[in-house]
Amino acid sequence: MSDKAPWITYRPELKVLDCTIRDGGLVNGHRFTDAFVGAVYRACVEAGIDYMEIGYKNSKRIFPTEKYGPWRHCDEADLTRVVGDHSFEKTGLKLAAMADAGKSDWETQLVPAAESPLDMIRVAFYAHQVSEAVDMIQHANGLGYETTANLMAVSGITETEIDTVLDAIAPTPAGTMVIVDSFGYLYREQVDRLYRKYSEALAGTGKEIGIHAHNNLQLAFANTIEAIILGCNRVDSTLFGFGRGAGNCHTELLLGFLRNPKFNLRPVIEVIQNYVLPLRKEIEWGPSIPYNITGQMNQHPRAAIEWREGPTPDDFVAFYDKIVAEV
Amino acid sequence: MSDKAPWITYRPELKVLDCTIRDGGLVNGHRFTDAFVGAVYRACVEAGIDYMEIGYKNSKRIFPTEKYGPWRHCDEADLTRVVGDHSFEKTGLKLAAMADAGKSDWETQLVPAAESPLDMIRVAFYAHQVSEAVDMIQHANGLGYETTANLMAVSGITETEIDTVLDAIAPTPAGTMVIVDSFGYLYREQVDRLYRKYSEALAGTGKEIGIHAHNNLQLAFANTIEAIILGCNRVDSTLFGFGRGAGNCHTELLLGFLRNPKFNLRPVIEVIQNYVLPLRKEIEWGPSIPYNITGQMNQHPRAAIEWREGPTPDDFVAFYDKIVAEV
Repeated sequence: MSDKAPWITYRPELKVLDCTIRDGGLVNGHRFTDAFVGAVYRACVEAGIDYMEIGYKNSKRIFPTEKYGPWRHCDEADLTRVVGDHSFEKTGLKLAAMADAGKSDWETQLVPAAESPLDMIRVAFYAHQVSEAVDMIQHANGLGYETTANLMAVSGITETEIDTVLDAIAPTPAGTMVIVDSFGYLYREQVDRLYRKYSEALAGTGKEIGIHAHNNLQLAFANTIEAIILGCNRVDSTLFGFGRGAGNCHTELLLGFLRNPKFNLRPVIEVIQNYVLPLRKEIEWGPSIPYNITGQMNQHPRAAIEWREGPTPDDFVAFYDKIVAEV
Repeated sequence: MSDKAPWITYRPELKVLDCTIRDGGLVNGHRFTDAFVGAVYRACVEAGIDYMEIGYKNSKRIFPTEKYGPWRHCDEADLTRVVGDHSFEKTGLKLAAMADAGKSDWETQLVPAAESPLDMIRVAFYAHQVSEAVDMIQHANGLGYETTANLMAVSGITETEIDTVLDAIAPTPAGTMVIVDSFGYLYREQVDRLYRKYSEALAGTGKEIGIHAHNNLQLAFANTIEAIILGCNRVDSTLFGFGRGAGNCHTELLLGFLRNPKFNLRPVIEVIQNYVLPLRKEIEWGPSIPYNITGQMNQHPRAAIEWREGPTPDDFVAFYDKIVAEV
């Protein structure tokens, strides 16, 4: 064990991505007001956050505009209306959007990076979609975007599948490969094994490793810290943990933990107080017993979300009995 | 790294202590109904929990019965009224009470263990009270109780002070020395250092090491897991994290994580649903921004608790400004 106190120093290469609008939008069909998205954008700039993920680049066929808000598609006109003539040079912030394999018209939907406020495309995929993901990464890279590879639901697949995905991603131009704990199932020893697996497979490629944690077991922040300790330099979080079900690693916890003096906690608390907490009157998120149970069972939180929207949302014993009976 | 998957096996020597009544009682002056305490007791028995901390053995001079409920003093008549002719042999559960240095009339208040439903006295103390704590441990041990040494607020004292306390506790009959993160400040690398320090100082004494974590930074469960990974075999938790301010490690998360088949999650969820969650209509607990801030600053949560009881409880920005100005 080192004699040093790492908790009072910092790594300048560690970058924070706030995905409040992108991930949180899964709760409300991405129907945020411009005022809300603009407030989050300004808070990210003022807080010194490195990346803001402002939505999805997803298909309008699959997610029609009658049902989904503009942040599901991130048309350049919608982006510009909110972020104006945004640039990294002026703000220190880069804008990202996520494109899902199987849910995006990426061949036609992406414009050249020079014509978009977006700086980065994050490619999300399940293991069986890795070939499309590789094509998407190459396409977005060719258009001038930074790219990442986000293998989702990693706790639900075999180690052989993970190895195969890592082999396919290694030669791509993706700058980061993200450990994505979609079910909020992982704890520290599992994060360690995944980090070591990812870093061995990607050694020599120059890729960074990222972490995207969910809070089903109240471990999102802890698992993010663990990944940082191991060497992860790309970390995701959302304001007050806003997100579907149990939500995410909280941006305010993460910034309060990091010691890089460029980060500023106050604008984060301010936007939470003025914009995010009022949402809680309409929308529920955060860890509670139904999400604990699906997390412990390594299941998608779908059943817990449905239970909370059903006729007996507070009957946790009945939910437990149902899940135990079904496995 | 081991090739094994420790998360599907277990250590039989790991024991869980539920301190819902003792620690949670700091919120309500230990004025629980007999029905509430009885329900928690029955849930602990049915869940296979090893120890239930049913209150404090504290002084009636300092905590008068007009203001404090019976679980602040744990008179044997009050205990027996709720737990009947409890015994470990019949239930598999041991009962514990906490005695604070400086706040207990321990010379006169403790009866011989053979005349009490209590099996264990946990001695809580600050570093400067270690000499009284040693006397308390010896006295309680002489009366036939298992004993523990709980050095509180360990994040607020120097390493030299910790070393001195450990030297004083090592020769006592205390069976366990507990790492107590009173301010909810610690994260994994600090837990590691404390665990190693405690285990080196106590090597050869046969003492177990315990962990008592608070949830100010949403790290109570994670820090408890970390201590378990390192070798800690005594872990504290409360039902739904019930406790002052940000609360504690959640018993339902802990039991859901442990793989010892003797543990049973269902009665825990049941007592939470029927007894603990109804309390939330009157009492607030759990991590939120004011507790995050005091945790990050390594401060007692007192200021955050007072803020939440004051005229502008939801003005988190003003609380942040106040705390930043004061440090």
